Amino acid sequence: MENRDLTYAVLGTGALGGYYGGMLARGGRRVCFQVRTGFEEVKKQGLMVESCDGDFALPNAEIYAATGDMPKADVVLVCLKTTANHLLPEMLKPILKEDSLVILVQNGLLFEEELSADLPGVPIAGASAFICSFKVAPGHIKHCDFGHISFALLNKSEAACALLEKVKDDFIECGVEASVEADLPALRWRKLVWNIPYNGMTVVMETSTDKLMQDPESRKLIKDLMLETQQGAAACGVTIESEFIEKMLVYTDSMVPYAPSMKLDYDAKRPMEIKGIYSNPLKAALQKGVELKKIRMLEQQLYFKQSEYLK
Amino acid sequence: MENRDLTYAVLGTGALGGYYGGMLARGGRRVCFQVRTGFEEVKKQGLMVESCDGDFALPNAEIYAATGDMPKADVVLVCLKTTANHLLPEMLKPILKEDSLVILVQNGLLFEEELSADLPGVPIAGASAFICSFKVAPGHIKHCDFGHISFALLNKSEAACALLEKVKDDFIECGVEASVEADLPALRWRKLVWNIPYNGMTVVMETSTDKLMQDPESRKLIKDLMLETQQGAAACGVTIESEFIEKMLVYTDSMVPYAPSMKLDYDAKRPMEIKGIYSNPLKAALQKGVELKKIRMLEQQLYFKQSEYLK
Repeated sequence: MENRDLTYAVLGTGALGGYYGGMLARGGRRVCFQVRTGFEEVKKQGLMVESCDGDFALPNAEIYAATGDMPKADVVLVCLKTTANHLLPEMLKPILKEDSLVILVQNGLLFEEELSADLPGVPIAGASAFICSFKVAPGHIKHCDFGHISFALLNKSEAACALLEKVKDDFIECGVEASVEADLPALRWRKLVWNIPYNGMTVVMETSTDKLMQDPESRKLIKDLMLETQQGAAACGVTIESEFIEKMLVYTDSMVPYAPSMKLDYDAKRPMEIKGIYSNPLKAALQKGVELKKIRMLEQQLYFKQSEYLK
Repeated sequence: MENRDLTYAVLGTGALGGYYGGMLARGGRRVCFQVRTGFEEVKKQGLMVESCDGDFALPNAEIYAATGDMPKADVVLVCLKTTANHLLPEMLKPILKEDSLVILVQNGLLFEEELSADLPGVPIAGASAFICSFKVAPGHIKHCDFGHISFALLNKSEAACALLEKVKDDFIECGVEASVEADLPALRWRKLVWNIPYNGMTVVMETSTDKLMQDPESRKLIKDLMLETQQGAAACGVTIESEFIEKMLVYTDSMVPYAPSMKLDYDAKRPMEIKGIYSNPLKAALQKGVELKKIRMLEQQLYFKQSEYLK
């Protein structure tokens, strides 16, 4: 395995799949992109990444409409919204071979566990992306800031560890900051410290991150939600230091006014990723006997908001 | 005292003051109305009450711009928004005589206690109105449904008890269902069971009571907020039966879609009664060691909402 190049499949060629897959393809890796919306157009024109680190085009990117048409892959980067995750087992089957590694480049807790229950024995990892990017149009990605990606395995086998190291090296060689972390729950919960307060609150309050930070009462509530996330993590055996919470607050203060992905979904009347960011963490904490009341209230408010446009 | 008619002063001639004061005046009691907005017009035209129980006009109602112009009163019905309560001690001084009874016909907890601290020795009662009414225009009140008013004294002296009984009899004789309750905190907390969930949630979710009841998640949250109110009441020595909570849910189901007073204030960009309905109950419960997390979160969200239009 170490002596040959990996074939990557990217499911979902949006803000994440378009950027990371694009970087790998630009660096010479073989990347097969699955494009749902605007397939014909993207197949004709290829990919365009407008990046703060330099724009690039991939006119000859390998574009597919469905996984049934794609070659088998060594590594699958799942960059779909988690609201489509119930389709994953069927989507993955045509492109998996023995020891293919599936990496969920997604937000939220327990999706790796859920997928593993559906595909027993398949090596699965999670990835957490610290990036500001979005899809301008089909096949056209704009990358504004950051880009670091962290990986962690759900179940560590020697082969999977070696393969994930090679993936990380590929990312780095192709110009993306990347790292492998030891603990998947820690990777997921740390990201939730930011995602839980800001995703939900920008939707429910119909506002942006900067406004939430300016008013002392909403700022306090943001911090309360982070502290409940810390409690939930602790219940699941993950330690989040208080300094990390302070760092997230200061980091958000320094950000340009920003609409998190859930706010973009809400504004576009798309399903929101409530399950992974709220319901699953609440479930995981409750299984350990810990009730996270403010996070639960935010979840309830989000389901109400979603019910207003999604019948 | 028993053998002569009482003189009433009504501070704030809106949905409540206009209706209850109007009913007393129609029934032949002397009622002096203080009118802030549209004083000249109301003084010229008098009051008009459009009621589901029959319309009536009071062309010769006694209208005043300020308490400094008013005669002293035996009974003062304070029907102002509680956001103006810091002005009450100064407003009341010109119209109080020895043993005048001040009745706060308002929503929210601890205002009687706060006023008593500013006006030591003055008999004070609270009143809770179960009514649907609103001000159409200055001096023009529309009464749509219900009307019962309950009174309770802050501190019981023999004289104050007798006076409050006479007030209740006056209301009944003038066609208003009225009762005297033994326990002011119980009167206040029971009203909060409805006010805490529906006032705040219609504002924060920008919706109406019926929509909140239809979605299962927001309906659950409404009930959670009622259960926290029950906990807060219990901490303060007030028992609220679980059947009462079920009754409030069923009662709201049967209501026509309704915008609570806080939602009307929010839509009109007026200050909201956050202090009496949220901050004071939270303070009272916290003093007994009980933290009401979802109610606290709603308070934080309301302050954020208010900060968007009130600088």
